[in-house]
Amino acid sequence: MSLIVKKFGGSSVANAEKVFNVANIIIEDYKKGNDVVVVVSAQGDTTDDLIDKAKEINPNGPSKREMDMLLSAGEQISISLLAMAIEKLGYPAVSLLGWQAGFQTDSHYSIARIKKVESERIRAEIAKKHIVIVAGFQGLNKYDDITTLGRGGSDTSAVAIAASMKADLCQIYTDVDGVYSADPRKVPSAVKMDEISYDEMLELATLGAQVLNNRSVEMAKKYNVELEVRSSLEPTKRGTIVKEITKMEKTLIKGVAKDNNVASISVVGLKDSPGIAFKIFNKVAQSKINVDIILQSIGRDGTKDITFTVPESDAEAAVAAVNELNDSLNFQTVTCDTSITKVSIVGAGMESNPGIASKMFEALSDAGINIHMISTSEIKISVLINEKYADAAVLAVHDKFFA
Amino acid sequence: MSLIVKKFGGSSVANAEKVFNVANIIIEDYKKGNDVVVVVSAQGDTTDDLIDKAKEINPNGPSKREMDMLLSAGEQISISLLAMAIEKLGYPAVSLLGWQAGFQTDSHYSIARIKKVESERIRAEIAKKHIVIVAGFQGLNKYDDITTLGRGGSDTSAVAIAASMKADLCQIYTDVDGVYSADPRKVPSAVKMDEISYDEMLELATLGAQVLNNRSVEMAKKYNVELEVRSSLEPTKRGTIVKEITKMEKTLIKGVAKDNNVASISVVGLKDSPGIAFKIFNKVAQSKINVDIILQSIGRDGTKDITFTVPESDAEAAVAAVNELNDSLNFQTVTCDTSITKVSIVGAGMESNPGIASKMFEALSDAGINIHMISTSEIKISVLINEKYADAAVLAVHDKFFA
Repeated sequence: MSLIVKKFGGSSVANAEKVFNVANIIIEDYKKGNDVVVVVSAQGDTTDDLIDKAKEINPNGPSKREMDMLLSAGEQISISLLAMAIEKLGYPAVSLLGWQAGFQTDSHYSIARIKKVESERIRAEIAKKHIVIVAGFQGLNKYDDITTLGRGGSDTSAVAIAASMKADLCQIYTDVDGVYSADPRKVPSAVKMDEISYDEMLELATLGAQVLNNRSVEMAKKYNVELEVRSSLEPTKRGTIVKEITKMEKTLIKGVAKDNNVASISVVGLKDSPGIAFKIFNKVAQSKINVDIILQSIGRDGTKDITFTVPESDAEAAVAAVNELNDSLNFQTVTCDTSITKVSIVGAGMESNPGIASKMFEALSDAGINIHMISTSEIKISVLINEKYADAAVLAVHDKFFA
Repeated sequence: MSLIVKKFGGSSVANAEKVFNVANIIIEDYKKGNDVVVVVSAQGDTTDDLIDKAKEINPNGPSKREMDMLLSAGEQISISLLAMAIEKLGYPAVSLLGWQAGFQTDSHYSIARIKKVESERIRAEIAKKHIVIVAGFQGLNKYDDITTLGRGGSDTSAVAIAASMKADLCQIYTDVDGVYSADPRKVPSAVKMDEISYDEMLELATLGAQVLNNRSVEMAKKYNVELEVRSSLEPTKRGTIVKEITKMEKTLIKGVAKDNNVASISVVGLKDSPGIAFKIFNKVAQSKINVDIILQSIGRDGTKDITFTVPESDAEAAVAAVNELNDSLNFQTVTCDTSITKVSIVGAGMESNPGIASKMFEALSDAGINIHMISTSEIKISVLINEKYADAAVLAVHDKFFA
């Protein structure tokens, strides 16, 4: 008998038929004697519909507190419907909102971070042999106000419960049956992996493989929660296990990923004085924007340029933040380029084998694709290229390593 | 400076334009320096849409706990949208769910009763000069689970807040501009009243005038909350005040109302032994069904018949409850008639003027309408008639007293 946490995304519960499909998957594990806690996102287009309603009221974006109040209604609908479906099939279920399930977060509305999961209520329901259905994506801050966790928050909710309850396994159901070396819809030679390490998965998630949200993988790594990526459409098929893998085989490329949600921002003509980079990135960090690649170069006339990448959705805010520094830093201009894509290869032991990078660059060069920026880490090599070559670049790089 | 509680129904906030209309009504009072707490129902068809979703999952009716979890999402959407609209217009607002606003209820899901409103949070928000928008219709039981208050629950929510906070006035906005002596859409001579007593309003509410929910009027009476029924379409027009009126003018007929939501249930051929009526109505009460008119008559062969009326929606459950008693009471049969309507006249001092009743019966007789059952109280006279004559009966009786 195990404690299993399962997470289903919005498309898995988009209509009554799909809700019953998910209910059956859950019941299968429950019938085997397992304790089952399920995290669900809002149904299909519910969140988008709610966002549309808010935009009708205020096209410039309503307050984030009210937005979280609005959006969290989406999961409330899906959890109750899923609980009803399980009950209809003859098994005991109970739905819990984020706050009922004990999700305590900070107060950054729309991008709240989970501080703690007080799982007493979940434990009590499990003790009553209930299948527990928890609303993903939402929590409560210290003011007793509802917060949402931002993009991919339901994955994080699932991992947080698994961590808090020391679950045996946390299964993330998606519409693919595991983690592939590249997007199988676009790269025919893509290979499904049986296992992958947290760090590798983290790079793939960060890089836009869109299988798992990166915050959820970070949390899984931190609390050593074993994840499994599975398909809700082929529920009996084994997925990909994400866990701590200590014995790394050398330079095993695990995957190629692309991320279109990238903008590069250049601060041009900075006077060269100490602390400039600190001031810029401190300012950007205050706006809660994650900076990815940073490149500093010598400009003309003794000035410097600093270029960095941020999620495309944060580009406007990042430019605004930098512009606020103009008085103190006195740079020439800020430019923003959103027509770029980041393509990356991920695999353990990358740094110890310099041949990998050159092999990647060769593939891109053969395909006639120009590289704007390069960034490397222990387990990945990323390049920024023009977004119109994104798919071609992934295919070329993937085939260089896997074909 | 006053504390005003305002309640708006679902049709008043059905779309963005209407939400802004309501926001403007609220702001008008806020600008005058008043503290304003607003209770809102779910938008337009939201509740019906959610019920449809539940029926798709379980046509036989899902568990009431999950149903309450589902339906309470409706108000969550409307309160956040209304708060956003007020903020968009430049005024500070905060939306609160039932539990955040301190609504504690019993655990009868779908028909929960308010036990207490712990209004600290509302007070704190008012102290911050926020316009407070509260989700009507919902609360929290002692298990920390969401409950809903049943039909017309938002009216009750508004009165409960007004009572708890000792508000100066509780305004219920509807699509009519006050309480009329009859439905003005059907009775051209209907007269709008400036004032009406709780008891009279209670009878009119109970009798299907559908302006105010009866539980809300009961609560207003108990805590002496002054109500005003107003139109959200003509917000500057004075409505009808409902309050304790001690100096009653004699036999002033306040209105004529009909209620189609009535079924009469007859338990036929009961052995005449002590405690029969108790057993029947105790059983029905256990099913949480309100019994209205009761008639006991001598049947044939020394048996008795007991006929009583219940809301039509509870008829099936009432018949089932009575049938469970067949073993112990050994009656002949139970019949149920849903094709009836209750028509009533309401006014203080009714009992002291026997001429009123005969005037009503004369009107019906002149119109050729047969009376099935009669019930009288200090301030009302009700008759049960065939529902096909409902409108004709209201018109005939109203014109007899008002024309």
